[in-house]
Amino acid sequence: MPRSSKNPPAKGGPVTLATVAARAGVSPQTVSNAINSPDLLRPETLERVRRVIEETGYRPSRAAQTLRTRSSRLIGYGIQPAHSSSPVLDRFLHALSQAADAAGYRILLFASPDGGPSLEGYEELLDQHEVDGFVLSGTDRADPRQAWLTKRGVPFVGFGRMWSGRPLGDWVDVDGACGTDAAVEHLVAHGHRRIAFLGWERGVSGAGDDRAEGWQRAMRRHGLPVRGRRGQSVNDIDAARAAAKPLLDGGATAVIAASDMLALGCYQTLRERGTLPGRDVAVIGFDDSPTAELLSPTLTSVAQPLEEVGRECVRLLLARIATPDAAPERLLLEPSLIVRDSSTTATAPL
Amino acid sequence: MPRSSKNPPAKGGPVTLATVAARAGVSPQTVSNAINSPDLLRPETLERVRRVIEETGYRPSRAAQTLRTRSSRLIGYGIQPAHSSSPVLDRFLHALSQAADAAGYRILLFASPDGGPSLEGYEELLDQHEVDGFVLSGTDRADPRQAWLTKRGVPFVGFGRMWSGRPLGDWVDVDGACGTDAAVEHLVAHGHRRIAFLGWERGVSGAGDDRAEGWQRAMRRHGLPVRGRRGQSVNDIDAARAAAKPLLDGGATAVIAASDMLALGCYQTLRERGTLPGRDVAVIGFDDSPTAELLSPTLTSVAQPLEEVGRECVRLLLARIATPDAAPERLLLEPSLIVRDSSTTATAPL
Repeated sequence: MPRSSKNPPAKGGPVTLATVAARAGVSPQTVSNAINSPDLLRPETLERVRRVIEETGYRPSRAAQTLRTRSSRLIGYGIQPAHSSSPVLDRFLHALSQAADAAGYRILLFASPDGGPSLEGYEELLDQHEVDGFVLSGTDRADPRQAWLTKRGVPFVGFGRMWSGRPLGDWVDVDGACGTDAAVEHLVAHGHRRIAFLGWERGVSGAGDDRAEGWQRAMRRHGLPVRGRRGQSVNDIDAARAAAKPLLDGGATAVIAASDMLALGCYQTLRERGTLPGRDVAVIGFDDSPTAELLSPTLTSVAQPLEEVGRECVRLLLARIATPDAAPERLLLEPSLIVRDSSTTATAPL
Repeated sequence: MPRSSKNPPAKGGPVTLATVAARAGVSPQTVSNAINSPDLLRPETLERVRRVIEETGYRPSRAAQTLRTRSSRLIGYGIQPAHSSSPVLDRFLHALSQAADAAGYRILLFASPDGGPSLEGYEELLDQHEVDGFVLSGTDRADPRQAWLTKRGVPFVGFGRMWSGRPLGDWVDVDGACGTDAAVEHLVAHGHRRIAFLGWERGVSGAGDDRAEGWQRAMRRHGLPVRGRRGQSVNDIDAARAAAKPLLDGGATAVIAASDMLALGCYQTLRERGTLPGRDVAVIGFDDSPTAELLSPTLTSVAQPLEEVGRECVRLLLARIATPDAAPERLLLEPSLIVRDSSTTATAPL
């Protein structure tokens, strides 16, 4: 702490090891032993030092503890620049921070570069700070981080699967297919049969393919055709607007989108045609972003259980730290469909 | 690091002080001296140790450096639960993290409790971790943190003014009045004269009163009446919808809102009357939240320069750490009006 001589601590300020030693009339080493190796002390001495520790409220600094125990109670997390982040990851970080605090840990942020996952930042943090492990987000195909951390014996947990290759380490993820499957069920229950899916390009994102898969399997289960009902777009509102056109031309009465952003592109296409989302064509998004409930009509969307993801990430990471050789644990959590006006006010389609 | 014996480091893994000492054929204390008190060593010895440090790429751990230099290069930041946070604070945290990284610092998160600013978390972090200082956000009237940290000689910088009482410490803030003033100018240039302001309740939020003040002073400058043109609401879309009614009944042709959320309430009131935001009544929000550009019509809004705020917070905090007795520095940054369809497509009013 830079509580320098110019800024003296308030009366009764920080109590140091030396303060305790002086009060107890022992050497600082003896105080250290009283904390770390009490067996080395004579019972009277131990008793005296402990009494002073209690009286003064002395708490050994974390840095000193880190050197001693090799545990910093810090978890590293790479945060992306604002323009390439998402509300989902922001809400996840809040949840992660709460869960870490509840477990007596803290999140140490480092700035991740733009673009996909990279090792930049991880090496530097390992060099400079003693973190006990990492939480990874934005995991995707060809993610180099899991192999790199595994090789170095550094504990980590991913929010997100690896999607390809041999899975490494522990992860917590949300079952996207389960979410789009539930969206189909909801629409079928409201009388829809021509249900389109507006997703990202095939093979680009594991999460995107997973969401498409849930739609497809539910459609098949109900004997509904999927041919000509799948559109693809990058995650941009104008691109989505264009990609939604052929789906609506093809007579879709409902569109399930792989993200709220794609759902918004669909809203715009509908408006350009003089039709209304909700009333004329049902629209369902994914991620339940803050925007979803502010739109007109409010957007039905698949919500990820981010509080639970945060808690489970911390739980798995601490278990890995405690037992480095345990079998990997992988958790797939169920999302929930938040039903709003965009999927319930539609005229029952033929 | 828990790179435990069960998970040995990869070949060429972490180089420790002991490694360097063994290679250089000196004691670990000598290596420590070479780094911290080079004067104590004979030039040949210093030269030899430095060569080994260079060859091995040895970097002293941060925990060891903290004990030695009393500087951890960590900045503490309290993060609120997701449901009580805002996109503005999330984007600020990204910017802060980038700026800290660029300066060789890291952000250490701790979970702030719900509700207003409190001391919970700060004391604990000071006890447990050696942070060099804090960045405060969500500063407001009756905020106890500045006085508490000042009393303890702990460096801090606020994102946000204190709004009342004797100002303490350094802060960076955004000139909200300047933003609403610019909004009035923009509307006047588009022919509006009956410009209403939909704000938060008077006296509750310093930032809210500041935004109202900018609207009022610009209206007066143009000789436009403000009586009956000011509405008040909590920051909730339904409350805002109700609060917008009397303003529209009063014949306002444009509404400036203290937040995008309030602007959305105004959108809904307009739609309920069969009128359209943008076309029939101009609407301007505040904060340029991610939702603003996704709405239909897209929402003109006042954007806070959050990247700059983040950079300046880090700069002021590091200056305070370096020179605890320097006079306080306080920066008011200008926001910018992001003009979109909601304020430009309106029929020129009478």
